[in-house]
Formats: sequence, C-alpha cells, structure tokens
Amino acid sequence: MSRSIGDLGEFVLIGQVTTRLPQGSEIILGPGDDAAVISAPDRRVVATTDLLIENRHFRREWSSAYDIGRKAAAQNLADVAAMGGRPTALLVGLAAPPQLAVAWVLDCTDGLRDECEVVGASVAGGDISAGEMITLGITALGDLEGRAPVTRAGARPGDVVVLAGRLGWAAAGLALLRRAGAGADAIPGDLAPLVAAHRRPEPPYALGPALALAGATAMCDVSDGLVQDLGHIATASGVAVELSRPALTPPPALAAAAAALGVDPWSWVLGGGDDHALVACLPPTATAPNGCRVIGRVGERGDAAVLVDGEPWEGAGGHEHFR
Amino acid sequence: MSRSIGDLGEFVLIGQVTTRLPQGSEIILGPGDDAAVISAPDRRVVATTDLLIENRHFRREWSSAYDIGRKAAAQNLADVAAMGGRPTALLVGLAAPPQLAVAWVLDCTDGLRDECEVVGASVAGGDISAGEMITLGITALGDLEGRAPVTRAGARPGDVVVLAGRLGWAAAGLALLRRAGAGADAIPGDLAPLVAAHRRPEPPYALGPALALAGATAMCDVSDGLVQDLGHIATASGVAVELSRPALTPPPALAAAAAALGVDPWSWVLGGGDDHALVACLPPTATAPNGCRVIGRVGERGDAAVLVDGEPWEGAGGHEHFR
Repeated sequence: MSRSIGDLGEFVLIGQVTTRLPQGSEIILGPGDDAAVISAPDRRVVATTDLLIENRHFRREWSSAYDIGRKAAAQNLADVAAMGGRPTALLVGLAAPPQLAVAWVLDCTDGLRDECEVVGASVAGGDISAGEMITLGITALGDLEGRAPVTRAGARPGDVVVLAGRLGWAAAGLALLRRAGAGADAIPGDLAPLVAAHRRPEPPYALGPALALAGATAMCDVSDGLVQDLGHIATASGVAVELSRPALTPPPALAAAAAALGVDPWSWVLGGGDDHALVACLPPTATAPNGCRVIGRVGERGDAAVLVDGEPWEGAGGHEHFR
Repeated sequence: MSRSIGDLGEFVLIGQVTTRLPQGSEIILGPGDDAAVISAPDRRVVATTDLLIENRHFRREWSSAYDIGRKAAAQNLADVAAMGGRPTALLVGLAAPPQLAVAWVLDCTDGLRDECEVVGASVAGGDISAGEMITLGITALGDLEGRAPVTRAGARPGDVVVLAGRLGWAAAGLALLRRAGAGADAIPGDLAPLVAAHRRPEPPYALGPALALAGATAMCDVSDGLVQDLGHIATASGVAVELSRPALTPPPALAAAAAALGVDPWSWVLGGGDDHALVACLPPTATAPNGCRVIGRVGERGDAAVLVDGEPWEGAGGHEHFR
C-alpha cells in the first residue's frame, strides 16, 4: 500500500513538495516562510484566485493528480493572461484527507509546476492542511509590463471580436467522461483529444499580452461559456456582441462527439466552459495577433447582450455554480 | 426562513458581496473582472495564502459568520506583517452549500472587510462556487515599503527574542468552547475574553513593519504554537532559542481557565496557536518598539531548537495538520 500524507506528516510533506519547485528569477523569497516575496516590476500586480474542490471541479477517477495540477494552475494563469498580464507566480493552498497517498500530492505538485513553466512562472508558496475533500485554493500573480490592464468594460461598437484558443472541447470531453462512467478507457481514439482537453486545458497564454499590445479594448477568458462570458463584456461595456455562427462551426471531433452522444454541438461551442480560450474586442483598425480569428463584432446595445447570427441564443449552457 | 445563496444565484450574490467592499487607493482594479490589479509600490509583493474549512478551522456553532471573516482575514494579514510588510489587499475564494443563508455570506464579507480596514487593506477580488463544506481560500498581499523582508533565517546568537501580542488566549478559548459544547453561553464572564480571542484574534499588525525597521533579524507569527514556530526560526537560522518562563507567566485569565478545565496553562502559552502574536529576534543593540517584550535570547545551536528555562519543552501542543 502506498504511503499516506498522514503517515508522512505535514512538515516532511511540505519539504518533499517544495524540493520539487524550482524558483524563477522573479521569486525573491519562495516557499518556507510566513509569506513569499515576488517581483512586481511595473509597481502593479495582477492577482486572481479560485477554489477547486474534489467532485465539484474535478474527479480523481477521471483525471490524474498531475492533470488536476495542470488544470488548476491553467485556469488561474489564464485569468492573468486575460488581463493582458504575464504570470509570475502561483500560490497553492491544499487541503486533503490524511489517508491520501503522498504520490498524489507530489504528482499534483508536478502538474502545477509544469503548467507554471509553460508561462515562465513559479509555484512560490502555499499551505497544506487536512480536509475531507481534496481542495485546492490557487492564486496566480502576474505583471502587466507597463501596459494598462485589459478589463471587460472597454468594448466599443465597431470593434471586432476575436478568439484565441478552443471552444467546447473541454465540455465535450466532460460529457464523454460522464457518459462513459467507469468505462472511460473505452472512449474512441478520435474523441480522445476532447477528453484530453477536459483534463488539461491549453489556454493561449501568450496571446493575452499580445492582444493587449494590439490594442484590445476588452478581454476575458472563456471559463463559463462563450455567450455567458461575452455577456459580461457586453454588460460591462454597455454594448452588444454579435457572433457569427459560420466563424464558430464545430470542428469534426466536436461534431463526432455530439453525434455519438446525441447532443447539439453548439451547446458546447457557445455554452461550454473550461477551455480557457481568450476572447477580445479590437478596434477595427487594429491588427489581430497571429493565432486569433474573428468571430463577430461589437454593436450598439439593444435588448440582448449577445446575439448569434442576429438572434439571442436560447441554448443550454453557461455555468452557474449554485444550480 | 432566510434566503439561501442558491435561491439568489451566483451572480446576484457576487453583486451583493462586492457592493459591501470599498476599494482603497492601492486597488487599481477591484472585483468584477478576470483578476484584480493592485499597487506594488516598491516593485515587490508579499503574498501568502491559507485554506479554512468548516469544522476543521472554524465551527459555525462557535463563531459568527462575521467573526469567521475577521479571523480568516487576520491569519493571512498577520503573515504579511510577519515578513515586515504592510498588507494591501485580500483575495477571497468562497465555496459554500447552496442552502447557506445569504446573510451568512454577507456577514462573513463584512468581517473580512473590517479586518482589512484595521490595516488599511481592501478585499480586492475573489471567487464564489458551490461546495459541501464552507471553505475560504484567503490570499493576502502586501508591500515592504523598501525594506528587506524579515525571514525566519537571520537570527544570530546574542539576539534577544521579543514578543508582540498574546499567547495561549485563543487556545484557551477553544478549549473552553470544546468543554462547553452547546452550552457556550454558560462560560463565565471573566473567561469571555479568551473565547473572544479564539473567535477574533488581534494580531499586532503594525509591529511587523516596526520590528523590521528596528532591525529584526528573524520574525514569524505564532500560528501553530510558540515553541513550534520558534523552532522553525531556530532551524532556519541554525541557532537555538532560549525562552524564559518568568517572562511568559500565564496571565490571570489563562490561569483561571486552566484551573477550571484542569489543564496546564503552559500548554496554551507554549503550544497554543491562533493568536497570531509576532515573535522576532533583534540584535542586542537594537531598541525594541513599544508593545514588545523580551521573552528570551538566541544561543548557539545544540541538540534542541528551543529551550524553556534551559530544558527542551516536552509539553503537549504545536499543530500538525494530519494528526
């Protein structure tokens, strides 16, 4: 039987975790003290936090500890990118039952570390305590490199709406896992990329700062669903966002999964969260960075915040945590 | 029956929470976007995070929502102070069951806000989601105002050890609540300050920067127990900490509670956590700020990290999360 964190004890565990965490040049003081100290070169720090709780935000039977670490880091690092920031550091609070295998915690740590490495950030500190459910409290910090933060509130009629990253892949992967239950291994190989997208999102981090430099007037990451998240931009900016279905046509893997499960693929494209794509509004004269595609435009605000081919979208989707 | 957060819905709840949160001058962008943006005047940010989980770190029957908010903020703000930092902002992740009363969340928010106000910080952002247990993921940020961070690693033989704040009060209050169970109202009035200390710690925040200015060579807050926390300083610094019992004599309220419960009050003084006192090592030539008292000295490292009147302390106490 594998060794548990309760057998190991808190302080030995913390030691084993922190030795796996290299500290980048922007970490002035890393793990092991009352707090970390992190460089904030432009005298401002971007900061965001999320809680992830077992069986609510992830399932151990559907994702490895490593992938849970990758995903937990990704969703917070993407929020920094969505402000136009470059992530610098992650802080991690972990609560777990004493009988949890030490290997689970170390694998999760490796996932957090490796996702940070993608963007040049470091896991600079944290906290470990006991809890019935595995719980991760993740905070990401970042630097704006002298740029203004790109909020949700600056979109103007006439702007074009651009997308970087995938839509609906993670939602489709989750639907496949839910349907397959314990038989997740039996999901056909051509649909495997969708399951992988659920387990390990690949936010287009570098396009956050690139879109800010290109003059983005508003930006957010797609964590709750495209229509819902663009609705926040539309409301904050006092505009309408007009999406074009042809620009969002579900790719073959999504269409195949939708056919296999008997669901509407548009519910994933327009309502699926967790891919952490970036959507931004750009002035019509701006040049979109490579890796972005135009998916709509910004119009005057009418009755609906978001229109899809001129109609409010009535499909399922969008995430509300208490329903 | 009071309204639940599930009835209200996530986005209305977030709106009600954020309207209660004034934003100080150092919050460049507050709640409502993908991330907050906070001023970091000296190009470095102090950052610390903790998870607090219902029935592990607090009990709703023993503490009001307001006090749980105060305490959750305090324990993180104290970590910033223990680096010699001035707290600037708090980020709060909250998970809660849908049936939780809206009033509970708003009262907890008020507690978080008011504890921040004590130090001039603001609740600048966060996240709300569903979970079976109420869970708070708190991150505190702070500024060093040009000073070097005071770590645990700089103590030198000959330094004096000074204490700011209370020891053992919160532990005694918790012991009283445990013994009283549902009859907590029956705790005698002269012991009420101990219960209050458990519910709402009063860390000596301002003495963190003051001790840094005074030349502190090492500092930490007492969150797990004096001997254990000083043990971290002793180990990190390669020294021994020699405490003096006469300087730590339990005050009358502690002695009375100990007599009432039939426990050794020294277990609270030397092993009790959660008061978030600050302990620091100062060069012998330094002048301790007002509000600190000398409780020992730093010696050469021998077999024991911490000595109490020349002996290793064998008493109960010190916190290990997985036991």
